Amino acid sequence: MTSREPVRIALVGAGRIGSHHATAIAHELHTAELVAVVDPRVDAATALATDLGARPEADARAVLADPEVDAIVVTTPAALHRDLIVEAAKAGKHVFTEKPLTTELAEADECVAAAAQAGVVLQVGFNRRFAPGFAAARRVVDDGRVGTPQLLRSLTRDPGPYDGDPERTPLWTIFLETLIHDFDTLRFLNPGSEVTEVTAHADALIRPDARQAGFLDTSIVHLRFDNGAFATAEASFSATYGYDVRGEVFGDGGMAVAGSGRTSDMEYYGPDGVAYGTSRADTDLLHSAYVAEFAAFVEAVRGEAPAIPTGEDGVKALEIARAAILSVQQSRTVSLGEVAR
Amino acid sequence: MTSREPVRIALVGAGRIGSHHATAIAHELHTAELVAVVDPRVDAATALATDLGARPEADARAVLADPEVDAIVVTTPAALHRDLIVEAAKAGKHVFTEKPLTTELAEADECVAAAAQAGVVLQVGFNRRFAPGFAAARRVVDDGRVGTPQLLRSLTRDPGPYDGDPERTPLWTIFLETLIHDFDTLRFLNPGSEVTEVTAHADALIRPDARQAGFLDTSIVHLRFDNGAFATAEASFSATYGYDVRGEVFGDGGMAVAGSGRTSDMEYYGPDGVAYGTSRADTDLLHSAYVAEFAAFVEAVRGEAPAIPTGEDGVKALEIARAAILSVQQSRTVSLGEVAR
Amino acid sequence: MTSREPVRIALVGAGRIGSHHATAIAHELHTAELVAVVDPRVDAATALATDLGARPEADARAVLADPEVDAIVVTTPAALHRDLIVEAAKAGKHVFTEKPLTTELAEADECVAAAAQAGVVLQVGFNRRFAPGFAAARRVVDDGRVGTPQLLRSLTRDPGPYDGDPERTPLWTIFLETLIHDFDTLRFLNPGSEVTEVTAHADALIRPDARQAGFLDTSIVHLRFDNGAFATAEASFSATYGYDVRGEVFGDGGMAVAGSGRTSDMEYYGPDGVAYGTSRADTDLLHSAYVAEFAAFVEAVRGEAPAIPTGEDGVKALEIARAAILSVQQSRTVSLGEVAR
Amino acid sequence: MTSREPVRIALVGAGRIGSHHATAIAHELHTAELVAVVDPRVDAATALATDLGARPEADARAVLADPEVDAIVVTTPAALHRDLIVEAAKAGKHVFTEKPLTTELAEADECVAAAAQAGVVLQVGFNRRFAPGFAAARRVVDDGRVGTPQLLRSLTRDPGPYDGDPERTPLWTIFLETLIHDFDTLRFLNPGSEVTEVTAHADALIRPDARQAGFLDTSIVHLRFDNGAFATAEASFSATYGYDVRGEVFGDGGMAVAGSGRTSDMEYYGPDGVAYGTSRADTDLLHSAYVAEFAAFVEAVRGEAPAIPTGEDGVKALEIARAAILSVQQSRTVSLGEVAR
Repeated sequence: MTSREPVRIALVGAGRIGSHHATAIAHELHTAELVAVVDPRVDAATALATDLGARPEADARAVLADPEVDAIVVTTPAALHRDLIVEAAKAGKHVFTEKPLTTELAEADECVAAAAQAGVVLQVGFNRRFAPGFAAARRVVDDGRVGTPQLLRSLTRDPGPYDGDPERTPLWTIFLETLIHDFDTLRFLNPGSEVTEVTAHADALIRPDARQAGFLDTSIVHLRFDNGAFATAEASFSATYGYDVRGEVFGDGGMAVAGSGRTSDMEYYGPDGVAYGTSRADTDLLHSAYVAEFAAFVEAVRGEAPAIPTGEDGVKALEIARAAILSVQQSRTVSLGEVAR
Repeated sequence: MTSREPVRIALVGAGRIGSHHATAIAHELHTAELVAVVDPRVDAATALATDLGARPEADARAVLADPEVDAIVVTTPAALHRDLIVEAAKAGKHVFTEKPLTTELAEADECVAAAAQAGVVLQVGFNRRFAPGFAAARRVVDDGRVGTPQLLRSLTRDPGPYDGDPERTPLWTIFLETLIHDFDTLRFLNPGSEVTEVTAHADALIRPDARQAGFLDTSIVHLRFDNGAFATAEASFSATYGYDVRGEVFGDGGMAVAGSGRTSDMEYYGPDGVAYGTSRADTDLLHSAYVAEFAAFVEAVRGEAPAIPTGEDGVKALEIARAAILSVQQSRTVSLGEVAR
Repeated sequence: MTSREPVRIALVGAGRIGSHHATAIAHELHTAELVAVVDPRVDAATALATDLGARPEADARAVLADPEVDAIVVTTPAALHRDLIVEAAKAGKHVFTEKPLTTELAEADECVAAAAQAGVVLQVGFNRRFAPGFAAARRVVDDGRVGTPQLLRSLTRDPGPYDGDPERTPLWTIFLETLIHDFDTLRFLNPGSEVTEVTAHADALIRPDARQAGFLDTSIVHLRFDNGAFATAEASFSATYGYDVRGEVFGDGGMAVAGSGRTSDMEYYGPDGVAYGTSRADTDLLHSAYVAEFAAFVEAVRGEAPAIPTGEDGVKALEIARAAILSVQQSRTVSLGEVAR
Repeated sequence: MTSREPVRIALVGAGRIGSHHATAIAHELHTAELVAVVDPRVDAATALATDLGARPEADARAVLADPEVDAIVVTTPAALHRDLIVEAAKAGKHVFTEKPLTTELAEADECVAAAAQAGVVLQVGFNRRFAPGFAAARRVVDDGRVGTPQLLRSLTRDPGPYDGDPERTPLWTIFLETLIHDFDTLRFLNPGSEVTEVTAHADALIRPDARQAGFLDTSIVHLRFDNGAFATAEASFSATYGYDVRGEVFGDGGMAVAGSGRTSDMEYYGPDGVAYGTSRADTDLLHSAYVAEFAAFVEAVRGEAPAIPTGEDGVKALEIARAAILSVQQSRTVSLGEVAR
């Protein structure tokens, strides 16, 4: 398509993150146009679409069949990703999908293959790559100032108190939904290398009452890369101080650290010392990163730049998550090669 | 006007800051529509307008006469502000003007009167009020945690090296264009109080060769407020490390500080210690503040919120700047009441 | 004296700061020996001396006459400095005196002359020169990375709440006891230049009830240096957040900032954001600087290094303080040359 | 002993750290007296002793037999610790030993038993407990603001470039000499809990040429505590930016982080952004912590306070190190109970 026309986007999945993304696309992305919001919960679709000047749809097939739709943004539950992505690709629609690409590796492979066959863009929502601090960390890796990475760290802590319902949360959520970000971040900060081994530890420390049922809310994962680097990924479902997302890459040339939950550069000095505020939500802390990744998606759709992170990046992160799950299940180190498809 | 329609804006003045603002309005403000770009330099107007899907105009009268224009954004040289603002008000157009409101007090009063008479919004571009750190500082003043302000500081240092031409720079530029921001910031951080006395010092330290001609590139201004607070405003045309904008308000309850030129939260640790990058331009450091002030302007035009900072705020800052100029001319402390209109 | 023997010190003035200094000398300075503590309040002298293994004396003449005393440390009220210093010099004793050297310029000159005539060391307790951050700031001035200083700032805020008694506090205390530190710091950060003009502003903002009596608890002083640099010195008797001592030197090469009240590098992240503690006392924040200045004094006594800051530095800071007082009295800018002796 | 008399200390081992410690004790500890320096390398002992006003000895038996010696400080190679400590205890001497207590668990147990039997103090040199930031972190754990620890981290990176000789470095040095600090730190930040399982990973990334010989210069160790907390200990022999020692404890109430290599609070702003310096040596970064731990030792000797960290703390850290070594040897998670004595 010519680059002067806005990319016409239909968003599928009008939940919390879908609402954020639809609004960001409609209000802050001059290169795109939000044409439809799809959700089987018609009320939700209608409310969001009306608010943003788009049309509501109950069924994704309507937008996949619509020649006036160039691309879809997938913000449904992960279990629905595979079908949506494959169908969209077949319909010639470009796809931006929230992480994880899928929860099953075989399905992830199918998505990548479908997009490749159709020649459409498939981009995965690993937003940290677009956060200024993480992007800057990658630049000092790329320019050689970090040298060869030797020790890496990435962590995600959701703002507390935890108010989820363990009974309604799939057991492997911490790996497939949370740590998947860290697995991608670690690959991003150690470019050109791949993970070879995973040793994962996890438990229900926030909700020990749900431990018996297999619930996991706290985890720490050790990774080995093929360039020798060691890495740690860490997650918690509840940080009292807000949303905490950090990265660190240490090499034989130096170290880059990224990530701060600061809400602004204001500091208050009072009787209790010095204090500054922290972000309470990903949509707050990473809002500009979300906008930037959609801008990159539009550029990829227009053929102006490659889609990054790619479907393959989504597969790689999922492989690591799957290896971590196997590691927890079997209480041992797992080679990436062992992960079944 | 009803709040669902975009406010139709014509921007007048297609220079550096005008180009930034036009782009921000066209690309990042879903509540506004950039309909025209005005500049007597037709090439500049045409290039910018075409790029942003607006129409070019050589003469502001065309947009003032156009019923399809709701508001104008003034980014011309300050000498042209008075006529444009008064004419726009007469034509029933809302006005957002870059600082300073005007360079002469009598003209500033005329602008305020014209807007009042026409019942249109007049907002002045004191962007720091919209920078997250400064806004947060004001909040801890408002919530009482700073107590009664006693000592304040605001500074502006332009990124160096200085590449301006002293011969083409009006003598009082440092007061009327640069420190005018700090004068507003100090009023913003000491709400409800007004400046009573000004003692200003200034010199050509960056370009001492231009001192003889009266050029001033470095200044420090002492202010007294009617609640007793002392304040310092400081400016330099050349900071090697980038664009430096900071504020500090100290009271009997505590202190708030704001302002950091950091480009991201990334820090690099290397053989020379730890380092982070700084911003090199106001349009970089304060980009989101600019977008936020336009969003506030649109809300004011729609009648959803008051226009802040108002034309009166523009007058007050100009009074201080004029007192500072008088103080430098006469090497003495000047009362605000002495400033002639 | 040979450098292997400890310097035998008598401390005169067993008040708050004298007790701190006596303890630091006795416990942390292996190159010195505290031999006597002098105070007309015999109980105070005895308690402190006994605790530190020194002998108490009620009258300084006893230690000045004692050949086993090499040097005295003066921590009496400033009004007693002149007589003590001159007598000590006549007795051949080296002198370290807390700031201010004296409160009257003529007396300060006498002290310097007496020390010069006797060939003894006279060092003034401007402790910030020995604080690591300020010393490091001076180094980046000396190594050229700041370039020519253009704008400087130094401030002192005592920890609040203010519990002094305005009726028992000499009117000019804020200049002679507090800002005298900042005047020296500004000279220290702009080496080779001297102050030429002073414009001072001051008021009773913390204790407005004492304003009528002439009490001053908040002040801001503008200084001009002979290399063109502008400087600001700022003081308050009450900062709720603790003891605040900061310096900033900005030049055509860059800027150095120093000063942080942090008690440690620990940061606590909790529901209210991120916070760290601040120092509540000079003897806490600057303890190591005090020890370092005594170590430097001992080196000077042993002839291993020059005494810095010198008596002349004490005179220069006092000249500025006297000019500031005159400026407040006459509400005008005062040239250093006007300061009477 | 009565608390007014200085504790008479003989230091055994006049190497790099021994020289630092002897000097600190002689010059900065008014509650102690350095009476002897022991080293079979008579030149080293003599040089150091002479410099500090102590007597040199070639054989530790001389000081153990000396009734004028109250305590010894052990800074010899770790292989000599057991004999020295046991003999000293038998001789009724109090013992401060640098870490590790010993390299073999059975020997560590013997040391603890010998000290208990003799009723002498046995303190181990885990200096971080005395660094202000780490001590403050422990305080916010103790006061409940961190809540129950869930995720901890401690790391040690020696300043680079690495100039050691792999051939002369025992294979397990990174665990027994470096990470032993982190194992203690993690126990210190999770008080009342003990480690139950260890999974260690290590490699020669800095000197891959020495990998074949079994050399290890980079390691990451995962620990599980009996209160459920997960912890990571990380070490590298070469950080280009200096000596890096950090700790982090995250719990259901909040997080405390400690550790910064900053040399002062000075920051330099220049054309490349903002930078501050970092420490290049433990004896620089942790100097005040070393002095503080000796002061605590003296207090323990005088019976004024318990010896902390105790010999038992030394045993616990060594158990973890031994488990980590076993984990690396067998590439599996190791229970603390498996560690042989």
